Amino acid sequence: MLPVAVDAMGGDNAPNEIIDGAQKAVEDHGIPVLLVGRPEVLEGLTDLPVMPASEVIEMDAEPGSSVRQMKDSSLVRAAEAVRDGKASAMVSAGNTGATMASALLRMGRIKNIARPAIATLLPSPGTTPTVLLDSGANAECNAEWLLQFGQMGSVFAQHRLGIKKPRVALLSIGEEPGKGSPLIKDSFKTFSEAEFNEGSFIGNIEGRDLLTDAADVVVTDGFTGNVALKTIEGTMKTLFSAILEKLTLTKESTAAFETLGPEFDELLQIFHPDTYGGAMLLGVKGVCIISHGSSGSLAIENAIKVAAEMSESGIVDNLQSSFK
Amino acid sequence: MLPVAVDAMGGDNAPNEIIDGAQKAVEDHGIPVLLVGRPEVLEGLTDLPVMPASEVIEMDAEPGSSVRQMKDSSLVRAAEAVRDGKASAMVSAGNTGATMASALLRMGRIKNIARPAIATLLPSPGTTPTVLLDSGANAECNAEWLLQFGQMGSVFAQHRLGIKKPRVALLSIGEEPGKGSPLIKDSFKTFSEAEFNEGSFIGNIEGRDLLTDAADVVVTDGFTGNVALKTIEGTMKTLFSAILEKLTLTKESTAAFETLGPEFDELLQIFHPDTYGGAMLLGVKGVCIISHGSSGSLAIENAIKVAAEMSESGIVDNLQSSFK
Repeated sequence: MLPVAVDAMGGDNAPNEIIDGAQKAVEDHGIPVLLVGRPEVLEGLTDLPVMPASEVIEMDAEPGSSVRQMKDSSLVRAAEAVRDGKASAMVSAGNTGATMASALLRMGRIKNIARPAIATLLPSPGTTPTVLLDSGANAECNAEWLLQFGQMGSVFAQHRLGIKKPRVALLSIGEEPGKGSPLIKDSFKTFSEAEFNEGSFIGNIEGRDLLTDAADVVVTDGFTGNVALKTIEGTMKTLFSAILEKLTLTKESTAAFETLGPEFDELLQIFHPDTYGGAMLLGVKGVCIISHGSSGSLAIENAIKVAAEMSESGIVDNLQSSFK
Repeated sequence: MLPVAVDAMGGDNAPNEIIDGAQKAVEDHGIPVLLVGRPEVLEGLTDLPVMPASEVIEMDAEPGSSVRQMKDSSLVRAAEAVRDGKASAMVSAGNTGATMASALLRMGRIKNIARPAIATLLPSPGTTPTVLLDSGANAECNAEWLLQFGQMGSVFAQHRLGIKKPRVALLSIGEEPGKGSPLIKDSFKTFSEAEFNEGSFIGNIEGRDLLTDAADVVVTDGFTGNVALKTIEGTMKTLFSAILEKLTLTKESTAAFETLGPEFDELLQIFHPDTYGGAMLLGVKGVCIISHGSSGSLAIENAIKVAAEMSESGIVDNLQSSFK
């Protein structure tokens, strides 16, 4: 089993939380890991194998030029490890744009796919999560790209969630075919006449349906998708903070709230972005898992598990043959 | 004091909840109300004055053609009452598109404003709500329209929330000026050089900042705005349902949860869309308050209060002189 290449230098909590998560993936799940980063930083902190990379692309660096110029960066080296058959997949919590650019430039694009897209899982309590894509790779899209996102998303839902016939929907502002932006109206026609690799197009859904069982795969452009994703994260954060503050105002409520501790922790876990261990960049010739910049060790551990599972599932081969 | 014209036939809970809300506005707040709708339906249910209108535009009817054809509909008559000086403002929980079309066609557009926009309040616990616009009137926009939305939103934040110098932001997918869709990048330049009626442009914010104190007025196109708004509503609904279900699984947790009842109800109220009593259509020559289709009597009562306040505040005159 090839190791998962983990960018040890990327993310707000690098390298310590990244190393901790990697260690757990090795110890608890038996997944081999190759840490990528500065040996002088990493070797004092861990006994895991290290692939040396002398540079670090900062979180706010311009993605394209950084990847072109910083050839010995941890992100570029991680993507090369996948390309060269030294790793089965890559994981990074670093600069999202640079992660995409590294994967795209080093692994290459799958033939006939116009643009890679980021597929994110949204929690939907009591049922399988909803796949949202594109959640941020392409701020401007056309109907043909969205169609490919839908088709890639359908394959992803099959491999990642075990849904045999994914229900694919467009994100719009009304269920009727005539509702939405010009892009969505165009796409509705394109989607209606297309096939989705055993899945099927079920029409438009709205923002309020994202965290429900309304659809398995929700397709949108990367601008709208990223706004929706961050709006969900922000709403949850505000709501959980308000609950914590409000329910611990008095001694009585604090005591009652403490009784509910374990249940509340489970709720937090269902809705916490760390639980799903990151998004997948679909459309490149290799498995690339993009974790939240704020990832802690649990998020990294989960991301490594997902990376290994996706590699073993053969999703990249499957995408390549779907788009042949 | 002129009465507020209330569309008694519009919304999922019409006419009963509409009438109840109107009754409370009259009794508890001393606001005169004129119910608009079918006399044969309304007169058995209430003693409030009724302006007769024989037709009802259904929730899923096509807005433009309905308003043109159904001249004796409750929505068209309510808008005419404002135009003709028989009412100070209109309120409807009916078909949103038809409400906008009625207001636009009967009251008319404010001179020099290209397109009216819907301004919605988003809860931001511990501080003033955030104004989001456009939250659904215009699925496709250009930078000049967005600029006018920002300027109207600034005036609205002053009148509605008492914020003297509103901080105006664009909704994007990164804080840097170069981040976002082509529309947002264009708008960033336009906004940077513009004035906002005592307010100021503070740059881009992201979806996760909507329910925080990051900005007072957040500007976006009606497609993105509506997706964001419904995503917030859906996330809250999913989260509150999950909390209710999870925290009442055992006898112990149910007992603890019941202790927290009053605090939890307050939380629900902070985040419930009914609390703010509806959105305002900015850019027409009259006050038009659009309530959620699912509005209950509290939402209608609050909407009537807001309608009366906005009318008394002189916001329409102020918008007219701002854009002269």
